[in-house]
Amino acid sequence: MTEQVAIGIAGVGKIARDQHLPAIAGHAGFRLIAGASRNARIDGVNNYPNVEAMLEAEPQLQAVSLCAPPQVRFSQARAALEAGKHVMLEKPPGASVTEVQVLAALARQNQCTLFASWHSRHAPGVETARAWLADKTITAVNVLWKEDVRRWHPGQDWIWQPGGLGVFDPGINALSIVTRILPRAFFLKSAELFVPANRDNPIAANLDFSDASGTPIRAEFDWRFGPQELWQIEVTTGSGVLHLAQGGKFLKIDDKVHDIGAEREYPGLYERFFELISTGTSDVDISPLQHVADAMLLGKRREVEKFED
Amino acid sequence: MTEQVAIGIAGVGKIARDQHLPAIAGHAGFRLIAGASRNARIDGVNNYPNVEAMLEAEPQLQAVSLCAPPQVRFSQARAALEAGKHVMLEKPPGASVTEVQVLAALARQNQCTLFASWHSRHAPGVETARAWLADKTITAVNVLWKEDVRRWHPGQDWIWQPGGLGVFDPGINALSIVTRILPRAFFLKSAELFVPANRDNPIAANLDFSDASGTPIRAEFDWRFGPQELWQIEVTTGSGVLHLAQGGKFLKIDDKVHDIGAEREYPGLYERFFELISTGTSDVDISPLQHVADAMLLGKRREVEKFED
Repeated sequence: MTEQVAIGIAGVGKIARDQHLPAIAGHAGFRLIAGASRNARIDGVNNYPNVEAMLEAEPQLQAVSLCAPPQVRFSQARAALEAGKHVMLEKPPGASVTEVQVLAALARQNQCTLFASWHSRHAPGVETARAWLADKTITAVNVLWKEDVRRWHPGQDWIWQPGGLGVFDPGINALSIVTRILPRAFFLKSAELFVPANRDNPIAANLDFSDASGTPIRAEFDWRFGPQELWQIEVTTGSGVLHLAQGGKFLKIDDKVHDIGAEREYPGLYERFFELISTGTSDVDISPLQHVADAMLLGKRREVEKFED
Repeated sequence: MTEQVAIGIAGVGKIARDQHLPAIAGHAGFRLIAGASRNARIDGVNNYPNVEAMLEAEPQLQAVSLCAPPQVRFSQARAALEAGKHVMLEKPPGASVTEVQVLAALARQNQCTLFASWHSRHAPGVETARAWLADKTITAVNVLWKEDVRRWHPGQDWIWQPGGLGVFDPGINALSIVTRILPRAFFLKSAELFVPANRDNPIAANLDFSDASGTPIRAEFDWRFGPQELWQIEVTTGSGVLHLAQGGKFLKIDDKVHDIGAEREYPGLYERFFELISTGTSDVDISPLQHVADAMLLGKRREVEKFED
């Protein structure tokens, strides 16, 4: 493919402005031609109140990037796929695991690319960590993902509503890295979910996973943490300890700090999306969302104090 | 295969005595040689306190059927698969979706049969319903699965504990039928979960699913119902209404009652297990549990009155 891919964005909120618009502008393979949002507008392109109107008015669109909250993602993605467009989904790819499976089937039927993106997998330390761990004997994994919800999601009600995931909204980023860097599949054994008395979703969670050999994999997610925040994954192996911190932007193995380059998660996502479109393939790995669904299935809920935004 | 398969049972509770023991006794291809249970014994065979002891003492075992509650199923299944035994899992196949995926991989590695069984799929009306629906245009599905928990689970604490599924323990039977008879995949759009103030799992649930075309698929599960109980699935199509009742034992299409023969769910399960062993294959369809995990992920929880057993 030598031509630019004409792309539209649906859901023009914080993540679209902070990350998607600059990443698209920085990729020579994409040309942004339209936006769809109930309330917001993107300067310099045509704007529509919803995805359906955008698809109707812009037949030259080839791809759509969906940045709205997960609760509305399915109907937008279905409309785009049925119109023959390639689709990139922000994380999490949907409000349920099965809806993403149905989307993947729709993409196949319509011969479109579907990319269920996990931006944290494009953090600079992730692939180096994966390569180093590939042949190691892993004896323990500890994940701490602790941040201040008021800083990252000011006034965002959707995170507290069913399908909004609560603390799993950041926690799923950790899970997207762990599922990428560990060489073996793992599963949830037990979990504690701490749910504010006035909310539907957890504000904190402790998760105990294991792989088939019984390796302990522990994750603690907490949204009541700050101002110093923690996004770190520590993997103990027979050949040393791997320490991935700052959400994947810092990598230390034993005491050696690795030079892994600068953060460019969203540019990396659009490179991947372009590659998938160019090769006529899809990339839909649901495993991070699957682990969250398991946590909600199997977790012990404990009521904690009300959370007021 | 002409020889009998030497089989052991783990978890000698109500379901093992009511269903598994008679079904094994009635199948010429199986020979029961051992049981594993903390407290109970099976007359006429060797008994052990746990699966590991049974595997250790009975090397001639070829297959193990796991009937204990789902919370302990993984470790039992892993032990059996690693010892090279074929494994049949009672429903639900595990306490989480990912643990069943890990078991399926273990079965492949060890070249063993793994059968994640769904007994309700062997109800006599299911295959006839599936065949009739295969080419129909479906416009609506309504599921009512309403029974009295005190009748079916007297004093069984595990159903209320994390991983025990609550009303999804019977509801997953309905989902195992619906996923079998409907020709298209469907997914959860929204759910309400009614959870007793003193329990972890729902005692009732209303689920709204859809397929990719927007066909409404509604399920209502309730454990506070009786003495007349309901286990019925109604599928409205462009060519008439299919009515599967009594958990799949009664089938009516429009006003014509179909003669579908007598109930023999567990004999059907063991026939299927024998066939899988004979052909060196596995059957692990996680979709019913996946829908339950989605319901716990996406459902709106509502507190209802305490449930005391």
